[in-house]
Amino acid sequence: MDRWLINGASVSEVAVTDRGLNYGDGLFETVAIRNGSARFIDYHLERLSEGAKRLSLSLDVQSLLPEIAETLEGHKHGVMKLMLTRGSGPRGYRPEKSASPMRIMGISETIISDTDFYQQGINLRYCETPFSVNPVLAGMKTLNRLEQVLAQSEWEAHDVQEGLMSTLNCELVSGTMTNVFIVKEGELQTPDLSNAGIAGVMRRVVIEQANRINVPVRTCSIYRADLEEADEVFVTNSLIGLWPVKAIENQLFKPGAITRSIMGALAKAGVQECEV
Amino acid sequence: MDRWLINGASVSEVAVTDRGLNYGDGLFETVAIRNGSARFIDYHLERLSEGAKRLSLSLDVQSLLPEIAETLEGHKHGVMKLMLTRGSGPRGYRPEKSASPMRIMGISETIISDTDFYQQGINLRYCETPFSVNPVLAGMKTLNRLEQVLAQSEWEAHDVQEGLMSTLNCELVSGTMTNVFIVKEGELQTPDLSNAGIAGVMRRVVIEQANRINVPVRTCSIYRADLEEADEVFVTNSLIGLWPVKAIENQLFKPGAITRSIMGALAKAGVQECEV
Repeated sequence: MDRWLINGASVSEVAVTDRGLNYGDGLFETVAIRNGSARFIDYHLERLSEGAKRLSLSLDVQSLLPEIAETLEGHKHGVMKLMLTRGSGPRGYRPEKSASPMRIMGISETIISDTDFYQQGINLRYCETPFSVNPVLAGMKTLNRLEQVLAQSEWEAHDVQEGLMSTLNCELVSGTMTNVFIVKEGELQTPDLSNAGIAGVMRRVVIEQANRINVPVRTCSIYRADLEEADEVFVTNSLIGLWPVKAIENQLFKPGAITRSIMGALAKAGVQECEV
Repeated sequence: MDRWLINGASVSEVAVTDRGLNYGDGLFETVAIRNGSARFIDYHLERLSEGAKRLSLSLDVQSLLPEIAETLEGHKHGVMKLMLTRGSGPRGYRPEKSASPMRIMGISETIISDTDFYQQGINLRYCETPFSVNPVLAGMKTLNRLEQVLAQSEWEAHDVQEGLMSTLNCELVSGTMTNVFIVKEGELQTPDLSNAGIAGVMRRVVIEQANRINVPVRTCSIYRADLEEADEVFVTNSLIGLWPVKAIENQLFKPGAITRSIMGALAKAGVQECEV
């Protein structure tokens, strides 16, 4: 990241006593910066605010806006990382009611990913690392992400772009860094996230756009057998937008009409990279 | 913490890009300092080393010893916190093979807990926050500890010292900051930790001491019904040693003979606070 703003100051270090470091006691967002603005920032802040409420982090999300604007200054394209931790505290898990959260934000200028991925699709694999089931954490983008780290450690191949993670009961949760959608008989399906997973901002946008263009969407339980019977599969996140899937290991997919119509709708909604 | 040593330097801040902060990508130990030495440091370093291997953190544990000695200097009693993170890296979950771990250590001089807890025992409660099941993480003391934070947030009462955490399937895992043992018909039982929980250093010492004084020990599944039928219950961790339990909510326990014999054995093994 090029520059960081921590509690409003231009520094790039945090106290070793910060509970974000010690316990992963916090939340984060990764926001796409396009044409100088933070894409879907309202949705990101809404998720952050809901998470903060669930973790009892006292935060007025509106107070972040001036700092976000300051962080954005001079950047046209890139990624903004926004972290919120419970700040420093005495030793021990118990959070102090009076703790005042740390606001961390930074921007890196990254290149938008290979256009081939949008046109031809990507390759997926099944990961062995299970995604933990815990309704108390489900949906939030917390700083406890060691499972994703271990899942991404499972493969190195440059021709596989994403891995699928499931619960110990073999229920699909998500990709390591994306949400997953499948198409079956004209219906979009995506895992229900009330017990595990992260409620992605782009997942929300896809569901809204599907509703708008009258593609039926259902959140439900999805197992490997459902993936094997799927007509189309795609993955989403805030930074990439949507990538069609051309293969899950040996199972091949053809470019799908519903995926294309969702991509068209996303492109119109501000996700220009989906314009193919 | 009074003083920190980070990668050998006397500083107390870490880079905001550190993967410990961003993902909880690391491990920690809390070591009791008694009479100027780090109690059971070999066991702590053994667990750290096993965890590092499982997370593919390249670390020669022996290289920590001079820094531990330097951190200890001038301290007689207290708590040493030792953290190991994967260090800084580029954005994204995927760890770099070449990453060189951050070594973080610090000491705080704390008061040894109330002697009443050793003599009369403590009060426990049942927590609602579930302990996630994930064999890939089980046993390790990782920096992903948000569940413990939320569990400890459940109560404030000063007369309850610890909370019990179970899986979603109602299998007992541990306390929020302790391991749990029960006594049933003369046998010690403690939760099997292959799917969830932290393999505590004091838990290991208790099992060794029980073996030495011929108290049978078994690691197994323990449910609430087992707790309700238990003759004695106690909790352990590196800092407190062992606390007998006098009540779990409304269920009362009498001081137990087996708990006392384990405490006697621990006191002889260097856990002086168990000498009551």
